[in-house]
Amino acid sequence: MGINDATIQLAHGGGGRLSQQLIQELLIPAFGPADGVLHDAAVFASPGKQLAFTTDSYVVRPLFFPGGDIGRLAVFGSVNDLAMAGAKPVALSLGLILEEGLSITTLERVIASICEAARQCELKVVTGDTKVVERGRGDGIFINTSAIGVVEHALNIHPSAVQPGDAVLVSGDLGRHGMAILVAREELGFRSTLKSDLRPLHHIVQELIETGVELHCLRDLTRGGLASAIDEIARGASCLIELQEDAIPINPGVRSACDLLGLDPLAMANEGRMVVICPATQAQTVLNRLRRHNNTACRIGEVQARTEQNTRHPVSLRNSLRVPRSLDVGRGEQLPRIC
Amino acid sequence: MGINDATIQLAHGGGGRLSQQLIQELLIPAFGPADGVLHDAAVFASPGKQLAFTTDSYVVRPLFFPGGDIGRLAVFGSVNDLAMAGAKPVALSLGLILEEGLSITTLERVIASICEAARQCELKVVTGDTKVVERGRGDGIFINTSAIGVVEHALNIHPSAVQPGDAVLVSGDLGRHGMAILVAREELGFRSTLKSDLRPLHHIVQELIETGVELHCLRDLTRGGLASAIDEIARGASCLIELQEDAIPINPGVRSACDLLGLDPLAMANEGRMVVICPATQAQTVLNRLRRHNNTACRIGEVQARTEQNTRHPVSLRNSLRVPRSLDVGRGEQLPRIC
Repeated sequence: MGINDATIQLAHGGGGRLSQQLIQELLIPAFGPADGVLHDAAVFASPGKQLAFTTDSYVVRPLFFPGGDIGRLAVFGSVNDLAMAGAKPVALSLGLILEEGLSITTLERVIASICEAARQCELKVVTGDTKVVERGRGDGIFINTSAIGVVEHALNIHPSAVQPGDAVLVSGDLGRHGMAILVAREELGFRSTLKSDLRPLHHIVQELIETGVELHCLRDLTRGGLASAIDEIARGASCLIELQEDAIPINPGVRSACDLLGLDPLAMANEGRMVVICPATQAQTVLNRLRRHNNTACRIGEVQARTEQNTRHPVSLRNSLRVPRSLDVGRGEQLPRIC
Repeated sequence: MGINDATIQLAHGGGGRLSQQLIQELLIPAFGPADGVLHDAAVFASPGKQLAFTTDSYVVRPLFFPGGDIGRLAVFGSVNDLAMAGAKPVALSLGLILEEGLSITTLERVIASICEAARQCELKVVTGDTKVVERGRGDGIFINTSAIGVVEHALNIHPSAVQPGDAVLVSGDLGRHGMAILVAREELGFRSTLKSDLRPLHHIVQELIETGVELHCLRDLTRGGLASAIDEIARGASCLIELQEDAIPINPGVRSACDLLGLDPLAMANEGRMVVICPATQAQTVLNRLRRHNNTACRIGEVQARTEQNTRHPVSLRNSLRVPRSLDVGRGEQLPRIC
C-alpha cells in the first residue's frame, strides 16, 4: 500500500519504520536535502550580522479556507512576523503535530502548499519535526513554524520608536481573513465570495526601507485585528493613538457581514495587512508605496502625547462628526482559531 | 480574580485582554524583555559565522514524570539537537498550544520549569506564541521549541562523515526515559523508582570538541531509542554498523521491566543519551571523557564497509557467543508520546 492510500497512525510519529517512510516519501521530496540524509539540526552560514527570530503555531479551523490554507498561513505568518522587524526571511523550521486518523492526502496537500509558499518567499524549510497524537487529542494538523531572518537596515522598528506626531497608516482593507474563516466554517449558514487577505508582506517592507523612509513601527494585523495591534503599540510607546474612524478601510463585504452578525470589523483578523507608523512628513511617501500594492491602503490616524487626561484609553476613535470615543480591546477574540 | 485561580479559556489565545493578561502576568515575568514590550520578532546580533537551527514539538504524556516534565524536555530536547551538530545554544523560541480548561497553575509550573532549564543551559527564550484550542481538540499543553545555536568548530559532524573502522560509543545506560514515562502513566499498574535520563548534552559535546577528537557523528537517542538512531546513521553513511550486544549498557531496572513487559530495551526512548562515532584510534579518549559524566558510558560497536552480502540490514548485533543477528527497527514506537 502506498503512503497516500492511508491515514496517519500513531506509529508515524514513533521514530520507527513508518516515521522513516513518512519522512522519505513525503517530507524529503518536498523540503529535504539532495542526499536525503537528515540530521538533528541544520547548519548553515549566518546570513548577516543582525538576525531576527520568530515563532508561531497555527491551529486554524478549517484547514482549507477561501484564499488560503493552514500551510500558506504557516509560512506567510512567520514571514510577516520577520517583516515587521524589517527582516528578510532566510530559514524556516516546520513542526507538525498530527492527529491519528488524518488523511495522508490532506497532509500532502498541506505540505505542497507549504512548499509553494516557501518558494514564493525564497525561503528554505531547513529543519522539521513530526509528532502524532491520539485521535481526539489534537485536531487534524497543528503547525509550528519558526523563522530566521536577516536585518540589513539600521532602523529601530519597534513600539519604543513611536513618537507623538507620527502618522498611522494601514496597508489595505481590513477584516477579510476573519470573515473568510467564519464563512468557511458554515456554522452560520452564511454565504459569501469573500477571500482571506492572506499574503506575504516582506517585499512591501523591503521597498519601504529602500525608499529611505524612517519606519518607526510595523505590526501585522492578525488575531484581535487593528484594535489589538494599535492598543499594543500605543501601550508599548506610552503614547495615545487617535484614529479617524471614517478613514479606516473596511472591506464592504466584511462591513455588511459584521453589521448583520454584530461583530466589530476593527477586531476582525487579517493575515496580509499591516500598520505602518512613520514621521508625518513621510506619510505620503509611504502611502504612495503601499498603494502600488493595494489601492485601499490609507492613512488612518496619528500618534499623540499621553496626557493626564487620556491615560485610561490609549486609543481613541474620532468619527466624521469629530466625536471621540475610546477603542476598547475585546476580552478575547470574536472567533477562536482563526490562525 | 488573579490569573492563577483560573483555567485557560479560548479567549487567552484571542489577542485581546485575556491574551495580554496571560502574557503580562505569566510570560513576560518569566522570559520577557526588561521593558515588557513585545514585538513580532526578536532581533539580536548573529552569534557567529555558522549557525545551527532545529525544531521539535513536545506532546509527552503525562506532563510531569519522574526525572522531568514537558518544560525541561522542551528545552533540553532542542539543546541536545543543536549539540548533535556540535553547536552551542544561543536563542530559543517557545510556541505553546494550550487546551481550553488547562489549569493555569499547571501552566505556571511548566513555565517555571522552562525558565529554569533555559537558565541551566545559558539560553534565552527570545520569542514566543500562545494558541488555545477547544476542550477535546488538544491535550493540556503541547510545546514547540526551536533553537538557534552557533557552530564554532570546523568538524563535519554528520552521518556522511562516518567511515568503516570508526568506533561507536554510547554516553550512558539506555532506556530510562521511556520506562519512566511508562511507569508514570500507571496504565500497567507497574511501580518503579526509575527516573528519566533527561539532561542537556551540550557541555559534554563541547568538551569532546575541545579535546580535539575528530567527531564523525553524534545522535541523541530519543524516539525509537538506540535501534532507530543506529539504523538511520548506518543508512545515511551507507555503511554497516555492528554492535556487541553484551557491551550495550541497559539500565538493570529497565532490563527487568522490559523482560516482564516484552519490550525491547534497545528501542526504548532516552532524553539524555547520545551515540558518538569517531575514529577507532580516538575511542578511548572519547570514552574517558564520557565516563567523567557517566560511568555507564561504553564502546558498543564498530562501523564496517557495506558489502553485497550485507546490504539488507544495515545494523547487526553480535552476542557473547559471537552469533550475529540483524537489528530490525520497529514499525512504530513501543510507546506513543514519550516526548
